[in-house]
Amino acid sequence: MASVPLLRTAEIIAVGSELLGSTRLDTNSLYIAERLAGLGIELHAKAVVGDDRADIAAMFREALVRTDLVIFTGGLGPTDDDLTREVVADVLGLPLSIDDSIVKSIEQRFARRGMKMPPVNVRQAQVPHGAEVLANPNGTAPGLLIRHDGHLIVLLPGPPREVNPMIDALCAGPLLECIGTERLYRARLFVAGRSESSVEEAAQPLYSKWRDETPPIATTILASPGQVELHLTIRDPDREHAQVRLLHAQEDLHRAVGEDVFSTDGRLLEEIVGEHLVARGYRIAAAESCTGGLLMARLTDVPGSSRYVHAAVVSYDNEAKVDILKVPRALIEQHGAVSEPVAVAMAEGVRALTGAEVAVAITGIAGPGGGTPTKPVGTVVIAILIPEQPAFVRTFSFVGGRSMVRTQAAQAAMDRVRRLLQSSAR
Amino acid sequence: MASVPLLRTAEIIAVGSELLGSTRLDTNSLYIAERLAGLGIELHAKAVVGDDRADIAAMFREALVRTDLVIFTGGLGPTDDDLTREVVADVLGLPLSIDDSIVKSIEQRFARRGMKMPPVNVRQAQVPHGAEVLANPNGTAPGLLIRHDGHLIVLLPGPPREVNPMIDALCAGPLLECIGTERLYRARLFVAGRSESSVEEAAQPLYSKWRDETPPIATTILASPGQVELHLTIRDPDREHAQVRLLHAQEDLHRAVGEDVFSTDGRLLEEIVGEHLVARGYRIAAAESCTGGLLMARLTDVPGSSRYVHAAVVSYDNEAKVDILKVPRALIEQHGAVSEPVAVAMAEGVRALTGAEVAVAITGIAGPGGGTPTKPVGTVVIAILIPEQPAFVRTFSFVGGRSMVRTQAAQAAMDRVRRLLQSSAR
Repeated sequence: MASVPLLRTAEIIAVGSELLGSTRLDTNSLYIAERLAGLGIELHAKAVVGDDRADIAAMFREALVRTDLVIFTGGLGPTDDDLTREVVADVLGLPLSIDDSIVKSIEQRFARRGMKMPPVNVRQAQVPHGAEVLANPNGTAPGLLIRHDGHLIVLLPGPPREVNPMIDALCAGPLLECIGTERLYRARLFVAGRSESSVEEAAQPLYSKWRDETPPIATTILASPGQVELHLTIRDPDREHAQVRLLHAQEDLHRAVGEDVFSTDGRLLEEIVGEHLVARGYRIAAAESCTGGLLMARLTDVPGSSRYVHAAVVSYDNEAKVDILKVPRALIEQHGAVSEPVAVAMAEGVRALTGAEVAVAITGIAGPGGGTPTKPVGTVVIAILIPEQPAFVRTFSFVGGRSMVRTQAAQAAMDRVRRLLQSSAR
Repeated sequence: MASVPLLRTAEIIAVGSELLGSTRLDTNSLYIAERLAGLGIELHAKAVVGDDRADIAAMFREALVRTDLVIFTGGLGPTDDDLTREVVADVLGLPLSIDDSIVKSIEQRFARRGMKMPPVNVRQAQVPHGAEVLANPNGTAPGLLIRHDGHLIVLLPGPPREVNPMIDALCAGPLLECIGTERLYRARLFVAGRSESSVEEAAQPLYSKWRDETPPIATTILASPGQVELHLTIRDPDREHAQVRLLHAQEDLHRAVGEDVFSTDGRLLEEIVGEHLVARGYRIAAAESCTGGLLMARLTDVPGSSRYVHAAVVSYDNEAKVDILKVPRALIEQHGAVSEPVAVAMAEGVRALTGAEVAVAITGIAGPGGGTPTKPVGTVVIAILIPEQPAFVRTFSFVGGRSMVRTQAAQAAMDRVRRLLQSSAR
């Protein structure tokens, strides 16, 4: 292993013409990037290239110039289109030969399903001279690891369920042995109810301070509808030192951004809300209009949510509000369906119907139609009832198209439930 | 323009270190690939590179060797991190100078919001010698188009809402002028209720025939939970000829795959179901258990769905099934909550509660917990009531994790509503 230097940088090459169209993205690289970051290996670039011999070879040659570790995904199948193995062997000048033990294991795989291995699959048993074979528990194509001229080259299959366990095994074994003592440590804060620029403004003085410390803490800010994420990373040989500094940095940031921070350990808003409900022994019910079930779909996306999710009514038209939720028709006629009195009546209605302790109502105008000068598209009213607290009701103005308005409305409703449960706990 | 040959191949380079982490993907390239395909320009490769001068330069040089058209996205902002303009000018040996008219337009953009342009933004007015400036209606950074040594090089900003209209303008203007008479024409079929391999088996004999025709029709098959897509493309100088051939091919495929095809024009299942409901004057209601609102969220994602979506009940626990949907408790005790009698009773309950003509009920085990030997995780029962038809009820077995089971259940429910409405129309 003397020929392998410390791995510091990596590049990912995804092979497959289907990844160059308008419908598919290479998502393997997200998982790989995350795992490499955990080892302190920095991703320099990633590329997608079609099933073309010359293009794959060119990308590979260039990656070897720039980087220590090159990871290929895809192109290890049994057909003529699957070129990664051959091109890599060719560029490195390594002869390919059939590995009988791989042939046997592929044959067994087919036999277990009562089938005979088709002759084409012998291609998947080709191994460049000197390469190590990486087991693929979820597919026929084994991976390959080549140590060549100071580089590590890894060939993996394409399907995520095959790639992920193989990357895990690599990171726990061959890659771990080549990274020295420094590691990358990370912390995250998730924020709701506040714009990206406002979060940035609050965090900026801390960023600059950390950047000048040794080793520095790097910061990234990411925004999606209704959520802002702050990521902190530090590269340090001393695990304890890194973790203490990250913890302090996280606490400083939490103080600066305040109670808009809802998670410091990667848990999502629906999980946090679920835990507050479980802690209080409350069940939740919802009356959804413009979000059409999105809030409930998010809450029930959490395994075990049946402990606290009771029921919901999607009252998409006014008749449903009147008939099922018993919202007085006069209230709708007087204030309109998108109004604070109607939202509160919807929440009261779903609480009476279901007997849940916590009731949430959402009514709004998601667009593209239905807006008026006083209630433009993006107007959303949220009402929340929680035991021993006055009713919460607020009118929000969200920007963006139909889907963004709906996403932000569901997110804001969950975030308000979180705040109310948090404050009632004090 | 004599120096620009026919554009046949392209490469996209997305610049930005944030695109190399574990949370963000370059999605601009999907839109760009789609628009380029419309002009018959083939994407050879795409790359993501960090905010690093040497890496950007290396990727650019290599792309120039391989391809006619290089499109950059990102790295046109006003800060020191934004390097695309400088690196491209440097690699091509073109001097950069400040374009006063761009400075003026950026100043005006700030002034309209009552602000003064920060001095750093002058960077965004730098133009390589001989470049054309591309208007950016949604942001400060203009795009740039450089014709150099037989290549076209395009620099665009990063945010999708800025990129998309600029790509549209390019495809309608400068790129259109450089592509000769051949165009790429496309057709799609969407299929539900059938596995990818079964669709492939039905389509395979047609594929092989089309591949040998002149010009050939290329085919791609894409699978996602509950849906298989067949894409057909043909490159032809004669628009009418191409469209007639595609139409025939589409009809042949439709015949081969049968009524599992639900869309031949890109419309989604929720839109197709909506149109059937509108045509019949029916309103739809749902009783959702394991999908927790996902079916309704999908149906109401369609603008104008308030014409036919009435209401839904998410009866996530058994009490809600009994209290709100009036499912007899004995039925649940006798057959279990995930059973055909209970699914039918849920559908009847929500129909009685809402008065909707079409009622759908979904009850199942999404996992990870809750499975039994006779009803493993993935068991989902769907019941549907439609006027003048016997009740539909069927037990499905879906594979995959919680999220995949829920997605497939909502998709299967919509697909069954489609089939029942289609057959009732005959």
